Amino acid sequence: MSVFSVLPTPFDTRGEFDPDSLRRVIDLFVADGVSGFTALGVTSEVGRMTDDERDRVLDVVMRHVNGRVPVVAGTTAEGLGTCIHYTRRAKAAGAASVMISPPRMPKLNSDAVARHFAEVAAAVDIPIVVQDYPPISGFAMEPALLARIAREVPAARTIKLEDPPTPFKTARILERAEGLEVKILGGLGGVFLLEELMAGAHGAMTGFAFPALLVRVVSLFREGRMDEAADAFYRSVPLMRFEFQEGIGMAIRKEVLRRRGAIASASIRPPGGTLDQSTLAALDRVMDWVLQTH
Amino acid sequence: MSVFSVLPTPFDTRGEFDPDSLRRVIDLFVADGVSGFTALGVTSEVGRMTDDERDRVLDVVMRHVNGRVPVVAGTTAEGLGTCIHYTRRAKAAGAASVMISPPRMPKLNSDAVARHFAEVAAAVDIPIVVQDYPPISGFAMEPALLARIAREVPAARTIKLEDPPTPFKTARILERAEGLEVKILGGLGGVFLLEELMAGAHGAMTGFAFPALLVRVVSLFREGRMDEAADAFYRSVPLMRFEFQEGIGMAIRKEVLRRRGAIASASIRPPGGTLDQSTLAALDRVMDWVLQTH
Amino acid sequence: MSVFSVLPTPFDTRGEFDPDSLRRVIDLFVADGVSGFTALGVTSEVGRMTDDERDRVLDVVMRHVNGRVPVVAGTTAEGLGTCIHYTRRAKAAGAASVMISPPRMPKLNSDAVARHFAEVAAAVDIPIVVQDYPPISGFAMEPALLARIAREVPAARTIKLEDPPTPFKTARILERAEGLEVKILGGLGGVFLLEELMAGAHGAMTGFAFPALLVRVVSLFREGRMDEAADAFYRSVPLMRFEFQEGIGMAIRKEVLRRRGAIASASIRPPGGTLDQSTLAALDRVMDWVLQTH
Amino acid sequence: MSVFSVLPTPFDTRGEFDPDSLRRVIDLFVADGVSGFTALGVTSEVGRMTDDERDRVLDVVMRHVNGRVPVVAGTTAEGLGTCIHYTRRAKAAGAASVMISPPRMPKLNSDAVARHFAEVAAAVDIPIVVQDYPPISGFAMEPALLARIAREVPAARTIKLEDPPTPFKTARILERAEGLEVKILGGLGGVFLLEELMAGAHGAMTGFAFPALLVRVVSLFREGRMDEAADAFYRSVPLMRFEFQEGIGMAIRKEVLRRRGAIASASIRPPGGTLDQSTLAALDRVMDWVLQTH
Repeated sequence: MSVFSVLPTPFDTRGEFDPDSLRRVIDLFVADGVSGFTALGVTSEVGRMTDDERDRVLDVVMRHVNGRVPVVAGTTAEGLGTCIHYTRRAKAAGAASVMISPPRMPKLNSDAVARHFAEVAAAVDIPIVVQDYPPISGFAMEPALLARIAREVPAARTIKLEDPPTPFKTARILERAEGLEVKILGGLGGVFLLEELMAGAHGAMTGFAFPALLVRVVSLFREGRMDEAADAFYRSVPLMRFEFQEGIGMAIRKEVLRRRGAIASASIRPPGGTLDQSTLAALDRVMDWVLQTH
Repeated sequence: MSVFSVLPTPFDTRGEFDPDSLRRVIDLFVADGVSGFTALGVTSEVGRMTDDERDRVLDVVMRHVNGRVPVVAGTTAEGLGTCIHYTRRAKAAGAASVMISPPRMPKLNSDAVARHFAEVAAAVDIPIVVQDYPPISGFAMEPALLARIAREVPAARTIKLEDPPTPFKTARILERAEGLEVKILGGLGGVFLLEELMAGAHGAMTGFAFPALLVRVVSLFREGRMDEAADAFYRSVPLMRFEFQEGIGMAIRKEVLRRRGAIASASIRPPGGTLDQSTLAALDRVMDWVLQTH
Repeated sequence: MSVFSVLPTPFDTRGEFDPDSLRRVIDLFVADGVSGFTALGVTSEVGRMTDDERDRVLDVVMRHVNGRVPVVAGTTAEGLGTCIHYTRRAKAAGAASVMISPPRMPKLNSDAVARHFAEVAAAVDIPIVVQDYPPISGFAMEPALLARIAREVPAARTIKLEDPPTPFKTARILERAEGLEVKILGGLGGVFLLEELMAGAHGAMTGFAFPALLVRVVSLFREGRMDEAADAFYRSVPLMRFEFQEGIGMAIRKEVLRRRGAIASASIRPPGGTLDQSTLAALDRVMDWVLQTH
Repeated sequence: MSVFSVLPTPFDTRGEFDPDSLRRVIDLFVADGVSGFTALGVTSEVGRMTDDERDRVLDVVMRHVNGRVPVVAGTTAEGLGTCIHYTRRAKAAGAASVMISPPRMPKLNSDAVARHFAEVAAAVDIPIVVQDYPPISGFAMEPALLARIAREVPAARTIKLEDPPTPFKTARILERAEGLEVKILGGLGGVFLLEELMAGAHGAMTGFAFPALLVRVVSLFREGRMDEAADAFYRSVPLMRFEFQEGIGMAIRKEVLRRRGAIASASIRPPGGTLDQSTLAALDRVMDWVLQTH
């Protein structure tokens, strides 16, 4: 069973990192039954942190998780050297693996992407989760490239897949990577989790604010209780979809976690989107419906 | 009450237009209670038709609808002249209004977009639905631009909104367009319909293959029966979301319409995506669940 | 020696096709020594024409060229069926070959692109020029894909290359396509012609308004007179670069052809860019300099 | 007279920062007559540096320039807080101003961009150069937005313009910003410098490896010696254009600086492009031609 929660980075109303809130999120998600955590991911707002802040956040995560579950650390960077630097720090901090997107760069190509993963793997001995999220990296990795990376870089055989249609692409990647032990974890807020599992995915890695719902779907699915898994999933989808809105998704997710009592402020670092009354009212409604039907 | 269905264009297995299937879709959707139709939209695969085929499809639609409900005809084109040409044809064929995206062009800007709508409106006396779907036009229209178009071009005060987050953007457009009678119709397969309505949208314009579900949500919402509207909507979302998958969405939609007995073949014109077994199995399951819970 | 001129489509001030001006351009370019023509290209404003206009323009070109040099016809389309339809028309009209970009489509991938070219080639027996111009097609073809197309589709072994850096990519494609008779023609307004030739390109296919300058560079290069080729090229570059400006390039090109006496009006179909006084003054200056130094 | 050189960051063959080479570049460019420097720009490979490296590079620049000319420091960041943090450091280090692009973010809009500049200006009292380079920021700022920023944020009235067609856009911005003291500096490797000046630009800010050529063009232009300015410019264009190639431009620029004796190694940090034999041979030729004709 594999549900990794991407951790948000809580900030107070002045935008400063709030470690107590982060600790509460960790405890809440452990209680929800997650298999592991991902820190310093895109939705952790890692792009809006300095290097010192990255170190500090990862340190809080590692100490507070304290071995209860494994931690994946995001170490994506535009430069190979910086990526290796972040990866070394992650390993030194105790991360079980790292998550890496292709480096952002004009005129990037498949060979350069494969080489990037190979060189990180050669420099640091740690498993790599390949993140396939084209809106962030600006580069779409075709199934053949993901299979090639899995073949050429044995450390990089887990994929966090966020390039829709993810169930369809899951099947295509597994075809291309036949014979290799490739593990695919669906992202996209869990919105296609059931279908990803049906296509052969291993689990989920996403920041959805009620990971217990993801855990339940994956557990039922693994036990072969398909009708129950599907029912649990479909009843969760309205909230997953609502939370996973472009531009304001992270603000919604933090608001949910604030309502769950985990974080003190739902603040997003600017220029991140803030919520309006209509969105908050819609959130009230969909949360009520989803929670009462479970 | 306003639910417009974007009509698919059925093709036989050799890729030829199948007018009988189109007529059956029209009858099915009229029975489902739609307020109108949109022909020659993006999901009608209009981009894969010759000009002669466009004419033929629109002709079949107009004759078979035969005034039962109004018809909107897509007339988007890269050139102003071609857009006016299509718009004239649509009007001559009896379309109630036309739907137009910004013209695709490198270095397009807000002034050129506003001028484009103004010049079409000056050339042809017919209401215009402004389509805001950035992945197709390559241009993101900000709320201020949509409000400006509504102000400067009185014929262009209906917006088919497909730039997420659509509920949030709905509210922003209505703020900017205060005092103008702007009508917003949500697209995106209906996936955010309830929240769009809560934010002030007028209805929906999308190709979702069970428009009765959209009609029910909008009707209940208009009657102020919010809990029922929300319940009906949330129970439909799993299917809406599944149908509205990038790259294979149109193939799924046609498969649903085939299962509903409306179209003879679910064929998509190449290079459109085709479905795999895993997707078909997932469709079985989600259709069953959604239909049985209604 | 291979310099193909992409023909502009002259329009009068009301935006109507002006066949007399087109005939004068053809005669001027034949006198300039071009090896062939390309009609209905991107810079022919083909995107702003109806199907009837396409037919009419191609007809004028074929009749007026009248076998003096070969003609390539652009037949790019979003749908395979439409592309085959255009290709058949081009062949019937007497075109020597057709030029095709990947079909525009969300989530396009390498396999679908290769299949598209293979299916056009299977349907119509005519040589295909593969156009590699990512800003138009929205898809970047890597050297390995271009080599694969050349290998799998023998009819498609000429490439109009417009994905910078074109000299570098020329070398990479030729490496990958070793053993195949791949011919690369540089586009991009001729701005990198010398370097493309040095990297192994066969010639140029572009709309630069003084094709005699391109012809001279290629001829001197073929004769091994490198210093003269380079000198001729470098002295032309200021004008090539100026003409090839994003968004207003076609307007500049038509203005040059108007000044050369070939076309009656420099009109671009809207929403194409129009020139301002500063651009016209800069054009005066660079034309004077380039023409007087040759 | 205003020619700012964007400084490369020299690395040794192992990818480590080479401060001695950077000092030699500074001295060479001061001797070439530049009016100032820009450190930590895009072409300084700032995206491939850690925060510590940024600090170290800026420190070397400030100490070695030692007040001979003003220094602009790049402080672009995805987060407002990080941008302010970098800006404070730049000011503390002695930078005369900072250069900032819009923050990279999905669903960014004009209001958020204007607010970003306003908030940085409110937080730190230092002049801001607004960088308009859409391929990097992912956001195209229209002339009206650039004029709005200049109006609302008096500290942000200098623009590094790199959104082609730059001469045309220069004129449009100056029209919109009438009455404000907006200064436009052309980027894009100097390839349109003359035309930018003719359209009203104030000077250039670019990393071209022979800034003396830029200085000469701007000086002659300012003295009203237009024919000489144009002649000097056109004779430089072949090299400017060659150096400014997408994907490999920085590698070419460093190779030129190596040949000029300034930097010990032309190494680019991976995944940056490396040069092939054909590119090196073409560089030999164009350097010879440009240097001998001046």
